[in-house]
Amino acid sequence: MMKTSAAVNHTVLEDNAQVKVTDKFWLNYMELIRTEMLPYQWRVLNDLEDIEIAKERDADYIPSEKSHAIENFKIAAGRSQGHHYGMVFQDSDVYKWLEAAAYTLARVPEDKKLREAADSVVELIAAAQEDDGYLGTYFTVEAPKRKFKRLYQSHELYCAGHFIEAAVAYHKATGNQLVLDTACRLADCLDRHFGPEEHKIHGYDGHEEIELALFRLYETVGNKRYLELGRYFLYQRGKDPDFFRKQCRADADTSVLIEGMEGFKDSYYQNHKPILEQETAEGHAVRVMYMCTGMAMLARLKNDGKMRQAARRLWKNITEKRMYITGAVGSTVIGEAFTADYDLPNDSMYGETCASVGLMFFAHNMLKDEAGHGAYADVMERALYNTVLSGMALDGRHFFYVNPLEVVPELSRKDPGKSHIKTTRQAWFGCACCPPNLARLISSLDEYIYSTADDTIYVDLYVGSDAELSLADKKVALSMTSQFPWEGNVELTTKTDGRYGIALRIPSWAKNYKIAINGSVVHEEKQDGYVTLRRNWHKDDRVTLEIPMEATLYQATPEVREDIGRLAVQRGPLVYCAESIDNGDGLERIRLVDGMEFTYEYSDELFSGAGILHTDAVREAKGNSLYSPYGKPRSLHRQELKLIPYYCWGNRGENEMMVWLYHK
Amino acid sequence: MMKTSAAVNHTVLEDNAQVKVTDKFWLNYMELIRTEMLPYQWRVLNDLEDIEIAKERDADYIPSEKSHAIENFKIAAGRSQGHHYGMVFQDSDVYKWLEAAAYTLARVPEDKKLREAADSVVELIAAAQEDDGYLGTYFTVEAPKRKFKRLYQSHELYCAGHFIEAAVAYHKATGNQLVLDTACRLADCLDRHFGPEEHKIHGYDGHEEIELALFRLYETVGNKRYLELGRYFLYQRGKDPDFFRKQCRADADTSVLIEGMEGFKDSYYQNHKPILEQETAEGHAVRVMYMCTGMAMLARLKNDGKMRQAARRLWKNITEKRMYITGAVGSTVIGEAFTADYDLPNDSMYGETCASVGLMFFAHNMLKDEAGHGAYADVMERALYNTVLSGMALDGRHFFYVNPLEVVPELSRKDPGKSHIKTTRQAWFGCACCPPNLARLISSLDEYIYSTADDTIYVDLYVGSDAELSLADKKVALSMTSQFPWEGNVELTTKTDGRYGIALRIPSWAKNYKIAINGSVVHEEKQDGYVTLRRNWHKDDRVTLEIPMEATLYQATPEVREDIGRLAVQRGPLVYCAESIDNGDGLERIRLVDGMEFTYEYSDELFSGAGILHTDAVREAKGNSLYSPYGKPRSLHRQELKLIPYYCWGNRGENEMMVWLYHK
Repeated sequence: MMKTSAAVNHTVLEDNAQVKVTDKFWLNYMELIRTEMLPYQWRVLNDLEDIEIAKERDADYIPSEKSHAIENFKIAAGRSQGHHYGMVFQDSDVYKWLEAAAYTLARVPEDKKLREAADSVVELIAAAQEDDGYLGTYFTVEAPKRKFKRLYQSHELYCAGHFIEAAVAYHKATGNQLVLDTACRLADCLDRHFGPEEHKIHGYDGHEEIELALFRLYETVGNKRYLELGRYFLYQRGKDPDFFRKQCRADADTSVLIEGMEGFKDSYYQNHKPILEQETAEGHAVRVMYMCTGMAMLARLKNDGKMRQAARRLWKNITEKRMYITGAVGSTVIGEAFTADYDLPNDSMYGETCASVGLMFFAHNMLKDEAGHGAYADVMERALYNTVLSGMALDGRHFFYVNPLEVVPELSRKDPGKSHIKTTRQAWFGCACCPPNLARLISSLDEYIYSTADDTIYVDLYVGSDAELSLADKKVALSMTSQFPWEGNVELTTKTDGRYGIALRIPSWAKNYKIAINGSVVHEEKQDGYVTLRRNWHKDDRVTLEIPMEATLYQATPEVREDIGRLAVQRGPLVYCAESIDNGDGLERIRLVDGMEFTYEYSDELFSGAGILHTDAVREAKGNSLYSPYGKPRSLHRQELKLIPYYCWGNRGENEMMVWLYHK
Repeated sequence: MMKTSAAVNHTVLEDNAQVKVTDKFWLNYMELIRTEMLPYQWRVLNDLEDIEIAKERDADYIPSEKSHAIENFKIAAGRSQGHHYGMVFQDSDVYKWLEAAAYTLARVPEDKKLREAADSVVELIAAAQEDDGYLGTYFTVEAPKRKFKRLYQSHELYCAGHFIEAAVAYHKATGNQLVLDTACRLADCLDRHFGPEEHKIHGYDGHEEIELALFRLYETVGNKRYLELGRYFLYQRGKDPDFFRKQCRADADTSVLIEGMEGFKDSYYQNHKPILEQETAEGHAVRVMYMCTGMAMLARLKNDGKMRQAARRLWKNITEKRMYITGAVGSTVIGEAFTADYDLPNDSMYGETCASVGLMFFAHNMLKDEAGHGAYADVMERALYNTVLSGMALDGRHFFYVNPLEVVPELSRKDPGKSHIKTTRQAWFGCACCPPNLARLISSLDEYIYSTADDTIYVDLYVGSDAELSLADKKVALSMTSQFPWEGNVELTTKTDGRYGIALRIPSWAKNYKIAINGSVVHEEKQDGYVTLRRNWHKDDRVTLEIPMEATLYQATPEVREDIGRLAVQRGPLVYCAESIDNGDGLERIRLVDGMEFTYEYSDELFSGAGILHTDAVREAKGNSLYSPYGKPRSLHRQELKLIPYYCWGNRGENEMMVWLYHK
C-alpha cells in the first residue's frame, strides 16, 4: 500500500496490543533494570544508598548529599517533619522510577518486592496530593503562594506530566485505580488553572512534558478535556514570548528557583515564537523532543494537519541537519542545546541520553501518526542501539548523561570546554534524569516494536517478541525471533488465520535483503522503507527476512565541518568506534585507507557478548615540528584496527574513543 | 660565530641604542596610533568620548558606561569627590596609554598636544601616590585596609608594573624626572612589603607583570634592590600553592574583588608549582607570557642558568606544542588559557591579542639573552605580522581581543561556546587591555629590530630604520630599507667604519636567499637562522639580501587534531586566509588540490595596500543526505580561490573566514 501523507485510521495501540519481548539481547537489559537498576534507584530515592561508598567508587563525581525524594513526599503528606530538599523537580525522580517499575511489573508481575515498593509509593503520592488535586512537594511544603507563578523554572507541569505518565503505565500494568484517580485529579486541577478562559493562566511550563502526558491520559480514560488542555499548552507556547518575564515581574517573591539559568534565551524554552512557526529545533534538546512528541500525538489524536506539518518540519530539521550518526542530539553543553544546522562537533557536544530517549518518543509517535514511513523507524533504531544503549554501563549501575563521539581523557581534564565529557560512566545518585529515563524506555520497549494502520502490521524494530495486535477489523497474533543487532536474520510466525498485511521494515543501511514465506522467496517491492506482504495468512506461516550486515563506511554531508575527511563505520544498526585500549593512544593519527576490508567476529566473552570489527589501517608517525611545508612524504605504518560497538565504549576504564576516523 | 647555549656578554640596548623606524608599512601604523588611537583613548580615559555614538557604531558591543580611569586618579589625589569606578585594575589603562604615548613622543617629540596630556597625567599620578609610595586608586579610595591582602585578584603589583614600565619609557623619551621618582618610590614601597624577611609578605601578584617591570627599572636606574625584588617574586611563585587561599582566609572582609573568578585553579595563576618546576605553559596565557618574559630577563641580568633552562623549557612547550600558526596562544576562552599539548581548535580558541604581544616580549627577551637564535626571531615575526596586527582594524579605532583562525558568523550567534568569537572589530571602550597593549608594542617596534652580542649586530626583524647601536667596544650606525612583508628585498648601508659582524636573519620560511656586499654575492654559511658577515666595514658599504617570497602550503604535525587534512598558506611572514566575501559562503566545502599554483598581486587599493593570492581550487557541492555510504563520486566544481593576509580579515563587514583550508 502506498502511504499517503495524510493520517490514516489508527488503533490505539496501548489499549489493545499485548507484546512480550522474548529477545535475549533486550531481556538482558530489561533484567538488569529489574534486578540492579530499580532496586538501586529505590535505595537512592529512600536515602538508603551509602553516599560515601558511591563517592569512593566515582572519585571524580560529586553527588548530592542525598536524594530526599521520598522524604519530600512524606513531608508533603504530613507524615514527616522538615523541609523540602533537592531540585524543584526532585519529585520527577520518583515518578520516572514508578513508570519504569510499571513496565517491569507488566513483564514480571510476580516481582512482589517491586510491586510492594511501587504500591507504597503510589499510596504516598496520593497522600501528598492536596485537596484541590495539586501535586508538587516543593510548592506544597515550601512555597504554596508561588504555585504556577514561576512556570519557566518551576517544573510543576513537567513533574505533573511525569506522574501522569507513570500513573497511566502503572494502572495498565497492575490495574491500580488509586494512581489513575490521583492523576485525573491532578489533570483536573491543571484544567481549572490553565486555558483560554479569561480567569485562567494563559501559559505553559518551561519544560514540555505535560502535553504528551495529558494525551496519554486522554487515551487511557477518554476524557476530552485532557486532550484539549494538552492542545492548549502546545498552541499557546511562544504566542507571547514575554509570558515568563511577565510572570516573574508579577511574583512578589523575586528569588529564583534554579540558579544559573537567568541568561538563557526564549528559545531555550521553545518560547521564541508560536509553535507552528518554529522551523528549526532550538534550545534545550530534551525540551524540544518532548514538545515534538506532543505535537506528533496531537496530529494523530485530532488529525491536526497544521500540527502534523509543523512536526514534520522539525523532524526534518533535526534528523537531516542536527543529529549525530549515533542518534545523539544537542551540540552544546551550554543549555544542553541545539545550535545550528550542520554544527555537529564530536568532542565538545552534549548528546544527552535523555534527548535521544526523547528522539525515540518523537519518532515513535510520528510512526503512530504515519505508520510505514521508514525514516521514522530508522532514526528510532539509530538512537536506540547507539546513544540510548551507550547511556548505561553493562553492569546496569553506571550511566552517561553526555554521549560524545570523540573523547580524549587529557582534554576532559585540561580543556574546561570539555569538562562535561566524562570518560567513564558514573553512579546514579541524587538528582538525575537520564538513568530513570533510560530505564522507562528500555522497560517499555515492547511498545516500540510494531505499529499498525488499517489492516497492516508494521514491524518497526526487529526485537524478538510474542505479540497480539489489533487491526481495524481483527486481532492478529504473531511471534518473532531476531538475531539483531548482530545478524540480520529475522523470523516471523503467524498465529492467526486471515487476510492482512505484514510490512517488514528494510532499514536504510540494508544493501540488499531476502524475504521468504514458508521457504519460498517473494519479491514484493519496497516502498518507503517497508516491504508489505499482503496475504491470506494461515496459522504457523513462516516469514523469514535476511538482511546481510556488512561493515560499511559512512561519510557526512560536506557541510558538517567536523566530519570532513573522516569516515564512520556502521554494521547493521550499530555504529562502531575505536578505543585506544585496543588501538594505542593517539587515535587521531590512525588513517583509514581505501580498499580496506573488515572482518567481523562475535564473542560471547566481550561486553557480555558483542561483535567486533577488525581491519587494516595505517598510523601516521608523530611529527617533528609543529608546522612544516606540505609535500614531504609522511611516515605511515601499518596499524591493525579494532572497532567495537559504540554503545560498549567506556566499559574498560578511561581511554580515548573516536567514532569519526580520519581518512588518509 | 657558533652560538653556545650559555649567555654571552650583553649590552643594555635600551640605554644606548637609537633606532628610528623609517619603514612605510610600519610608520603607517605608528601614525595611526599617534593620530587616531592615542587621542581616542585619551578621550575615553577622560570620559569625553560619546558612549551613545560608540554604541551605535557597534550595536553588538555593550561597553562600560564610562571609563572613569582619570577620574579615579583625581579622587585618589583629593582633587575630586566620589567613588572609584571600574575594574580593580582600571589604573592600568592609563599606564598603558602613557607608555604608548612615551614611545610615540620619542619618535615625534614635536607632538605638543600629546606631550601636554602625558605630562598632565604624570603629574596627576604622582599626586595620587600616597606618602609611603603606595599607588593604586581602588585601594586608596575604597579599601585602604585591604592593601596587599587579596593579591590573587587585586592586580596591585600588576598595575604597579605597568606604571613602572610607562615611567621608564616616559623618562627615556622626555627626561621627565617626576615619573621616574614616582616609580622608584612605588618600587621602594613594594620592597618594604615583599621579600624573604620574616616581617614581609611572602607572596606575589595573581597577575605577573611587576617582575619584568622591576627589571626594566633596574636597567634604568641601576638599583639592585629592584633586581632582587623581581627575582624574589619569580622564585617565590608557586612555592606555596596555598598562599592565595591563606591570604583570603586572613582577610576580614570576605567580598571578592572580581566576580566569576572563584572557580579558577592554581594553575590559572601559574601558582601550582615552583617556577623552576613548571614544564608546560598552564593557565591564563597573558599571565604566562609576562612571567616568561620576566624569567628571560632574569636569566640575562643575573646570568641565572636555572632560570634560563626553565624559560627555554616553557618556550619550547609553547612554540612547539601550543602555538597557532599565526602566533596566537590560548586555546580556550574559559580562563583565556592554555589547555594541553597540540590542542589547537581553530574556531573556539581565544588567541588574545595581548597574549601574542606578550609572546613577542618573551621572544624579544630570549633574543636579548641569547642573540642569534633564529627560532626566537621567527616566532616574534610570526606573532607580529599575524595576530598582533590582526588585533587592530585598518582605521586604528577598532580592535579584536580574540583572534580566531576560523569564523562562521552564524555559529558566533548560535553556539554559546563561540559567542566570544567576534566577527568584526569593536570600538575600544571602558576597561580594555588589548588595544593599549597593541599601541605600546607597535609604538616601540624600534626596540625589536636589532639585537647585539659582543661585536655582532643581529638583524632580527626587517623593518626599515636608521640605527645607532652599541657593540662591546664601539658604536655602529647603519640604515636599512626593506620591502617586508610584501617582498623579501632588504638593503643595509653601513654608516661606520670598523670590524664587526652583521648577522642577517634568514627566516624559517625562506626557501633560499642571496646576499651581496656592494653587489658581489657572498656565500657565508647560515648558522642557527643567521648569516653573519664579519668584515672590515667602510662607510656606505651596501649589503643586499634577497629572499624570494613564495606562497607555501603548510601542514601541522598530525597530533593537532583540528588541522588534520588541512593546509594553511603562508607567504613570507604573512599567513593568509579565505573570506567568504571573496569566495562565497560555505568555506568548508572548498578543497585545495595538489599541484595548485598561486599568483600574487599587490594592490595599493585594498586594505591600504596589500598583497593578494589567487589560485584554483575545487568546491564540493552540498550533500543530499546527512550521512551516506562512502564511495560515491563527489560533486566537485572548479573554484577560483582568493586569499588575503590574515591580519586584514574582518575589515569588510561580517563574513566567514578560514585559515586552515581543507585539502581534497
